[in-house]
Amino acid sequence: MFNSFGEIFRFTTFGESHGKAIGVVIDGVPSGMDFDEEFLINELDRRRPGKNRFATARKELDTPEILSGIFEGKTTGTPIAIVIFNKDQKSKDYGNIKDIFRPGHADFTYFHKYGIRDYKGGGRSSARETAARVAAGAVAKMILKEFNIKIEAGTVEIGGIRAQNLDYEYAKTSPLFALDSKIEKEWINIIDKARNEHNSLGGVVKLKIENLPIGLGEPVYYKLDNILASAMVSINAVKGIYIGNANSHKLTGFNNNDEISKNGFLSNNSGGVLGGISNGENIELEIYFKPTPSIFKPQKSIDIYGNEVEVNLKGRHDPIVAIRGSVVAEAMAASVVVDMLMLNATRTIDKLKKIYQ
Amino acid sequence: MFNSFGEIFRFTTFGESHGKAIGVVIDGVPSGMDFDEEFLINELDRRRPGKNRFATARKELDTPEILSGIFEGKTTGTPIAIVIFNKDQKSKDYGNIKDIFRPGHADFTYFHKYGIRDYKGGGRSSARETAARVAAGAVAKMILKEFNIKIEAGTVEIGGIRAQNLDYEYAKTSPLFALDSKIEKEWINIIDKARNEHNSLGGVVKLKIENLPIGLGEPVYYKLDNILASAMVSINAVKGIYIGNANSHKLTGFNNNDEISKNGFLSNNSGGVLGGISNGENIELEIYFKPTPSIFKPQKSIDIYGNEVEVNLKGRHDPIVAIRGSVVAEAMAASVVVDMLMLNATRTIDKLKKIYQ
Amino acid sequence: MFNSFGEIFRFTTFGESHGKAIGVVIDGVPSGMDFDEEFLINELDRRRPGKNRFATARKELDTPEILSGIFEGKTTGTPIAIVIFNKDQKSKDYGNIKDIFRPGHADFTYFHKYGIRDYKGGGRSSARETAARVAAGAVAKMILKEFNIKIEAGTVEIGGIRAQNLDYEYAKTSPLFALDSKIEKEWINIIDKARNEHNSLGGVVKLKIENLPIGLGEPVYYKLDNILASAMVSINAVKGIYIGNANSHKLTGFNNNDEISKNGFLSNNSGGVLGGISNGENIELEIYFKPTPSIFKPQKSIDIYGNEVEVNLKGRHDPIVAIRGSVVAEAMAASVVVDMLMLNATRTIDKLKKIYQ
Amino acid sequence: MFNSFGEIFRFTTFGESHGKAIGVVIDGVPSGMDFDEEFLINELDRRRPGKNRFATARKELDTPEILSGIFEGKTTGTPIAIVIFNKDQKSKDYGNIKDIFRPGHADFTYFHKYGIRDYKGGGRSSARETAARVAAGAVAKMILKEFNIKIEAGTVEIGGIRAQNLDYEYAKTSPLFALDSKIEKEWINIIDKARNEHNSLGGVVKLKIENLPIGLGEPVYYKLDNILASAMVSINAVKGIYIGNANSHKLTGFNNNDEISKNGFLSNNSGGVLGGISNGENIELEIYFKPTPSIFKPQKSIDIYGNEVEVNLKGRHDPIVAIRGSVVAEAMAASVVVDMLMLNATRTIDKLKKIYQ
Repeated sequence: MFNSFGEIFRFTTFGESHGKAIGVVIDGVPSGMDFDEEFLINELDRRRPGKNRFATARKELDTPEILSGIFEGKTTGTPIAIVIFNKDQKSKDYGNIKDIFRPGHADFTYFHKYGIRDYKGGGRSSARETAARVAAGAVAKMILKEFNIKIEAGTVEIGGIRAQNLDYEYAKTSPLFALDSKIEKEWINIIDKARNEHNSLGGVVKLKIENLPIGLGEPVYYKLDNILASAMVSINAVKGIYIGNANSHKLTGFNNNDEISKNGFLSNNSGGVLGGISNGENIELEIYFKPTPSIFKPQKSIDIYGNEVEVNLKGRHDPIVAIRGSVVAEAMAASVVVDMLMLNATRTIDKLKKIYQ
Repeated sequence: MFNSFGEIFRFTTFGESHGKAIGVVIDGVPSGMDFDEEFLINELDRRRPGKNRFATARKELDTPEILSGIFEGKTTGTPIAIVIFNKDQKSKDYGNIKDIFRPGHADFTYFHKYGIRDYKGGGRSSARETAARVAAGAVAKMILKEFNIKIEAGTVEIGGIRAQNLDYEYAKTSPLFALDSKIEKEWINIIDKARNEHNSLGGVVKLKIENLPIGLGEPVYYKLDNILASAMVSINAVKGIYIGNANSHKLTGFNNNDEISKNGFLSNNSGGVLGGISNGENIELEIYFKPTPSIFKPQKSIDIYGNEVEVNLKGRHDPIVAIRGSVVAEAMAASVVVDMLMLNATRTIDKLKKIYQ
Repeated sequence: MFNSFGEIFRFTTFGESHGKAIGVVIDGVPSGMDFDEEFLINELDRRRPGKNRFATARKELDTPEILSGIFEGKTTGTPIAIVIFNKDQKSKDYGNIKDIFRPGHADFTYFHKYGIRDYKGGGRSSARETAARVAAGAVAKMILKEFNIKIEAGTVEIGGIRAQNLDYEYAKTSPLFALDSKIEKEWINIIDKARNEHNSLGGVVKLKIENLPIGLGEPVYYKLDNILASAMVSINAVKGIYIGNANSHKLTGFNNNDEISKNGFLSNNSGGVLGGISNGENIELEIYFKPTPSIFKPQKSIDIYGNEVEVNLKGRHDPIVAIRGSVVAEAMAASVVVDMLMLNATRTIDKLKKIYQ
Repeated sequence: MFNSFGEIFRFTTFGESHGKAIGVVIDGVPSGMDFDEEFLINELDRRRPGKNRFATARKELDTPEILSGIFEGKTTGTPIAIVIFNKDQKSKDYGNIKDIFRPGHADFTYFHKYGIRDYKGGGRSSARETAARVAAGAVAKMILKEFNIKIEAGTVEIGGIRAQNLDYEYAKTSPLFALDSKIEKEWINIIDKARNEHNSLGGVVKLKIENLPIGLGEPVYYKLDNILASAMVSINAVKGIYIGNANSHKLTGFNNNDEISKNGFLSNNSGGVLGGISNGENIELEIYFKPTPSIFKPQKSIDIYGNEVEVNLKGRHDPIVAIRGSVVAEAMAASVVVDMLMLNATRTIDKLKKIYQ
């Protein structure tokens, strides 16, 4: 149950970084919807590794095979299974750290929890798993398109340097998903510097949801915001999130409250959520990514026998995992929103009656 | 299902601020444990309103009535139902805002979602619901005591002013749950100032979990950290959280990674979680509370008919909701940890066999 | 999670037979519906013990206290908590069997599972818990009334003697919920005989659901029929169920298949379910109850120390638990159907769009 | 969520009869267990179609491809994904009933629920989906082997003719999974007769679970018996189940109660379950299968436009679906038992402490 996400729109992922395949089974997709395979491929391509020097050099085409749930181009309401076969595993890269824990990496905790060391490429803890999330998110986005709900994300901070003017359109074409074209060059410089020093960088992703109906989010443990928080922090390397104005905790009530006029809210410090329920404004949230733990500088560690060692990593890793995080964050947000759309559909007796008239 | 939290250790809360009662049903409590009713009362008392000028003036003794699940002082393994009858509702305080939406408040979204205006004291969206969480958390803490797992929280920032030296023992006796005795006076001053100006303040709570076994947290959507995130953001007024060093996104991998020696990790930037699984270090997280939205300064708003109005609030509200948030955050964290303890118990075939030997 | 039932319409029960109270928290009730408290009281009254000699002599008025979820007579969409305080516990009746296992009773398994002996009245395993189910079912029926869906049940067999002509209207006024007025007298005779011999009887309940829309039931593990099966077998003393013609397994395909005309199915061997989904015909099922295990004839057993003993029971028990089972079966069926109505509401993209237009 | 089964040991199936593949993702498998691929293949082979004239003539080798969750021959604790690619679809067999509803078949309800007609081989409603269940069940059985828990099933009744002397060992080698070697010939005769008449037969499967620990099953909605009921009725063509002596409802309490001695129960009318919890005796249940609805005799029906038609079926179908039902019933039971083993592991504080010592 723990490799599944969502209640009605629920997806289950499987697969290890260097195993045969990764994949996802998506349950709860409504029937009768055109299935846009090209869009799915395109979303996977946005996250795909090996495209440029800002992501891992691993070459994976990430071509999805759809095994079920589609009939003559339409969704049938049955589970959609999507498999991506791994092609470019280089498991021997991991030979020299077979028995060594990498600082900042999940191999330490997986080993102690499961008593098993799947040393090849991080096994299930690898960010490669997020390709399966992106596939689920692509299907979620197909549903959201029917409601004109739009989800966009981009990089708002790298290595402590913050974007100023956010432009979600620009981010789409930027290799860094940069929200600010002016700062992009500076970011590229510090990334290149970090990579040359065999180091990595952290960053911040900003995500926006537009055109959400008022009323999405259930009380009090399946709120829109706490489930978005759960979704985001479940992404590899995410350590924190903030909904709305990330300074709200420093403000007074008078300054933080969004006043209301006939035409809507006069500000959006709330980030579109009040009491865990969407208020019709844009949902806005920030997602904080730690730097990629896999770096190529020597570090102190121990091996599985408890001996102290120096880690000297090989392999291929993103210099900054936050970048591709934008695509994964969008996917997770899309899944949350679809689930909330469905759950909200029966929350008043009038809505429920409308369905069966 | 949405007023329930947890998978094995699962509690369900009910009740409105100005209804007859609030309460909780706690399922999944192991049998054979001494039930410490005094501890339950004490935990509720820590959160209880009306104790001092830093919380709402509403007087509620919050005396719990235990309806089930205990037999001759011991837990039986059946659901523990705890009810707290409301005593000091002053619903007429809300008469003048019967039809008016309070800026920053959930009444707008609840009305639009449910088509119902339970204007008295915020109904289900009131922070009064958190007393039920504290009751569940008290039971969770009883279980954790059997494992010497300790959860503590306190205030680390108010109105943008940050504590320097954290002392969780001090926090226990402080009316502000202040983690730093030196800064307490300054905080009291700015709170008094805010109250005199009919305003409110935001703040930050810091939470620590000690002595957690390695291995708690499931992959990949029921991780220790994303469920803690979900738990925390589900608390009223929480807008963000951060696990571990809240600057990790600004650091390089080399600086952020916690190196490992024979005797454990050499630092704890990770906040005790790697890959969503506890690594044996203290869990540390920060929880960001917005300022209480209910303030007594006039603000622009609309009524349920869409007319623009000026809101002039009466009633009794916390000048800073973050303070009592410490107790609620501890309760939610305790529930998460108990659930994770149970889930982890069957994750290896050796553990499962141990049970049935 | 295991004292909860349902996915969207989900109720959670608590309470022991001889504890302070039993009760239920009902989550997922749509808002804006008139809450018919009188109907709730009436449903509880139908199940209530102490009314006649066909049920236990325990006198409980089973007056429900509604603690939450209703505002000015209407449902608010928040959890409805209903508590029934126990009044007529006679726990001393159980003094002489404090350490003895009753043959056919759950006290043996509860003791071995939980290591605790709540000997008073069966604790959580008592059929008294079903009052909480009936309360939840009453709320479910209020929802079904909005859709003109009707659920009725009655006794179709007692002690091996089968009713011939089923009349659900007659059952409503019969003290045995007898579906056949002609056979009622014979049934009364064998019940009286069994009681006089300090014995008990088994029986069969038949349940019918009318006016169900086509399409309720999800594939493939949350089908209408397997969830009905789960619901029914969870009722105390139920050992089996059958959907549709209870001879289907003896028939050929040609005889069992229901042919179809323009005006619908030409027979209803399927009991209204095909592939786990309602087909528009009446849902019909049979529920098999074992005889009440608590009898007043001496029987061989052991005590908790393993000594062989003769059990001589006191206390008050139904001579045939199947009778009041009709009311509980209706309640469980109503909860299942409401849940299925809600789940089905978002299964096609057209339905989902209809909601948000 | 509705194509998933179980709580901790949870599997999710996907795939259509004539789609690309069917498969299953199994979550919650403990790590560190030898994975017996040969056993998996063997279990699938037991259910496999095309082996003899008592099952459909469709030739599928049902070779499983394991995509994840195994590392160097051992389970890793991560999801095990198993895919079976379809080989012998003959979708054109269905061309002549493209628009026609088959009496007794789920195509009517699927069409009305989803608005989509996946006419090829029944789509998701086909019993072909049960191969995925058998794969999950094989993994469950591997776990049960560690506890010496044995699950066996066989045919106990065909076309109304009942087996007398049950021999589970014999069933293993019988093409009918017949529990009684003496009656097998008679059964073969009536099956051959039914097939020659283009008809089909119903039947009854009996299932036994040996060596189950006392204490499995949660109160009160996740009991061992009601979840077994749910599991069994979710199998295609199952219309009813009975736990223990299938005449219990006809008996008196005195006759039905199982008396207890020092050495255990003196009879097993309960079928090994009291109050929904295992009592240490063998679990025994009967599962009632309707006859295969797909027959080759003309029947009255309608098409999707509402026109009345005569159905003349082609294609390949089991003359009696109950036979292969034995294998599927075992698989479902194994999954239920593993889940219950895990859930029970943390139900007392002593058990939970044992794990972490």
